[in-house]
Amino acid sequence: MTLARSVLKWILLSLPLGVLVGSACALFLGALERATELRFEYPWLLYLLPLGGALIGWIYWSFGQSVEAGNNLIMDEIHEPGGGVPLRMAPLVLIGTIATHLFGGSAGREGTAVQMGGSIASGIARWVPGLKPDDVRNLLMAGIAAGFGGVFGTPVSGMIFAMEVLAIGRMSYAASLPCLVASIVSDQTCTAWGIGHTHYRIVSILPVESGLHLAPLDAWRLFAAALAGVLFGLTSLLFAEMTHGLHAAFKSLIRWPILRPVVGGCLVILLVWIVGTRDYLGLGVTSPDPAAVTIVSCFEPGGAHAFSWFWKVIFTAVTLGSGFKGGEVTPLFFIGAALGNVLAGIFNVPVDLFAGLGFVAVFAGATNTPIACTVMAVELFGGENIVYFAVACQLAYLFSGHSGIYLSQRIGTPKL
Amino acid sequence: MTLARSVLKWILLSLPLGVLVGSACALFLGALERATELRFEYPWLLYLLPLGGALIGWIYWSFGQSVEAGNNLIMDEIHEPGGGVPLRMAPLVLIGTIATHLFGGSAGREGTAVQMGGSIASGIARWVPGLKPDDVRNLLMAGIAAGFGGVFGTPVSGMIFAMEVLAIGRMSYAASLPCLVASIVSDQTCTAWGIGHTHYRIVSILPVESGLHLAPLDAWRLFAAALAGVLFGLTSLLFAEMTHGLHAAFKSLIRWPILRPVVGGCLVILLVWIVGTRDYLGLGVTSPDPAAVTIVSCFEPGGAHAFSWFWKVIFTAVTLGSGFKGGEVTPLFFIGAALGNVLAGIFNVPVDLFAGLGFVAVFAGATNTPIACTVMAVELFGGENIVYFAVACQLAYLFSGHSGIYLSQRIGTPKL
Repeated sequence: MTLARSVLKWILLSLPLGVLVGSACALFLGALERATELRFEYPWLLYLLPLGGALIGWIYWSFGQSVEAGNNLIMDEIHEPGGGVPLRMAPLVLIGTIATHLFGGSAGREGTAVQMGGSIASGIARWVPGLKPDDVRNLLMAGIAAGFGGVFGTPVSGMIFAMEVLAIGRMSYAASLPCLVASIVSDQTCTAWGIGHTHYRIVSILPVESGLHLAPLDAWRLFAAALAGVLFGLTSLLFAEMTHGLHAAFKSLIRWPILRPVVGGCLVILLVWIVGTRDYLGLGVTSPDPAAVTIVSCFEPGGAHAFSWFWKVIFTAVTLGSGFKGGEVTPLFFIGAALGNVLAGIFNVPVDLFAGLGFVAVFAGATNTPIACTVMAVELFGGENIVYFAVACQLAYLFSGHSGIYLSQRIGTPKL
Repeated sequence: MTLARSVLKWILLSLPLGVLVGSACALFLGALERATELRFEYPWLLYLLPLGGALIGWIYWSFGQSVEAGNNLIMDEIHEPGGGVPLRMAPLVLIGTIATHLFGGSAGREGTAVQMGGSIASGIARWVPGLKPDDVRNLLMAGIAAGFGGVFGTPVSGMIFAMEVLAIGRMSYAASLPCLVASIVSDQTCTAWGIGHTHYRIVSILPVESGLHLAPLDAWRLFAAALAGVLFGLTSLLFAEMTHGLHAAFKSLIRWPILRPVVGGCLVILLVWIVGTRDYLGLGVTSPDPAAVTIVSCFEPGGAHAFSWFWKVIFTAVTLGSGFKGGEVTPLFFIGAALGNVLAGIFNVPVDLFAGLGFVAVFAGATNTPIACTVMAVELFGGENIVYFAVACQLAYLFSGHSGIYLSQRIGTPKL
């Protein structure tokens, strides 16, 4: 009876959370799409990136010092409940991210979604009377799940991500029900608002008549997936170290916080000039230029250059390290898919499969969430190749070191 | 460098483990198939079940008292390393299980596979010099993964099962690499020996042209899946309590261990006579009788009777509680699929989907491994319906209580 009441309580708490976060995700994704279209339409917007940076810097300096830590603040509140996550985090990160993308910063979405989820969850926790600290913690985890599940359209990996991301090498089930409900409801709400997600295709080698649900394994491909997994993990490590390093460098070299993204914006413009392409700006999911390198193009042979992955690391580290807003995950998808594209050529294996492996595995390494990423691959690419995905994600996880992009992540079980 | 050496060490240890356990699984599955065929061919074999029970009882009493605890012994050795798992566990459980199935006991396969995996892993641990207690623990976990992945043909859920089963509500990643390698190699080895697995079909509602990998959700079906999940969980609880209760009752009522399975065998014969069908004997995956209730028939409308699930609970609890060998998992598949079949009629939802939900969710509840079971559904039924599977498995997990079928499982994080 206590159990039934507890389950009912969590369903009743998670439903509105999912609806609110899913709606916030829909608003965010809609605005993001419009911002990206505008950037494609008016290429000169890029030259306003330093100005946009100044704006973001000023807004966060004036109103957002308490929420500057972003995802880490939410994780800290879960580890050691303190003052809660301020509600202002949601609008600030939303505005900051849209501005970042409008002017061409290289950033992602999951940070924004997770922060909106966390701050809405914290808001609900303040309004509902009689919640205990453990309840607030569960609600915050559900907020992470709702943000992740909603923004990527992957409800099951949204739940697992929230359960897996708090501690390296350990998954805790305390909040599994609220995470699952909030993530599914958020995804459904976001879809109900008319938001679609990009569809990726990995051409299945399984004829429907076979009745099989797992693609037969090929020894060489499996070995290549493992080797690629190691490289994906080292790339995660490089990305995390470079983002943290640039962040620290900006902080120590430029005292005035508002100036940091201004300098970062100038550096991004300089990078565009050096590399001679705008392919590494923004989300990078699609481009009006059919010859551009995008996440989608990485699934086709020849869809990425040998060092596309590296340039995306640099562009993103400069953008985020200097104080622009967004997330790391979509750039990590890009970096992984581009590296996978190149490795497929070297290893003589299917390009779409290895782009997909990189897509999830670099992310798995950088966030230390190999199981969420394996399940995400099922939700995004289908289940037939789950063994390859599990192998690449596990090895990326093992080789990405103990830091990752979230500094508030704790070590639950040390890696090998 | 240490990491690369450690990874190499674990790959080198897990490869032979996977080959050996996969071969043992192939031998076991081949013998099991032959035993089941013989039982179908010679129906009078059922009347020898008490004699078979006496044989199993005598063998375990004479040679197997150190390995009687089965799966729990392996889990105890992982929690608190002691004298290791005796190598004799593998042949004893193999012989005991084949005899159980030859004469018509209602039992499964995973216990046998996991015990063969654990004892082979423990054997390797004794032969390889210089292993530390933590290494032995990891190797034992890899043995569990290899047994599970090999016997069911589900390598990724084999890995996750081994990581998830030791403690309720907590997954630990310490042995993830050895578990993954051993599970994949075991599955591949078993397949290479010519062993096939039963293919289940859940007719996808996704047209291939849609480019989607997740079936669109339907609110009523999702609600029905959640409600069914609760019932699946309560069924897991019933199954676990009944098996433990009968085990204790046999132990206290019948002093002489050899006599217990003799009585149990007589009770199974009596049950066949009462229920008037042999459908609940053995594995129950298939039957030569096209009108029989089997796991496969449960995926078709009308493929199970209203109380098929209940009778399978009774048959299995009597078989295993009295000392026959095998496992609980395939009967749990049967129980869940049969209950799902009936619930689908009541809720007016697709029979194949709900049979599949029950198949994995009753197992998830009884072993407290909701994520392994969600991934198992992807490996057995495809990924399109993963959200339904996650919902049913999570709710079954929440409603199955804190005991489960493995008494050596610890509580990592209490349920809601």
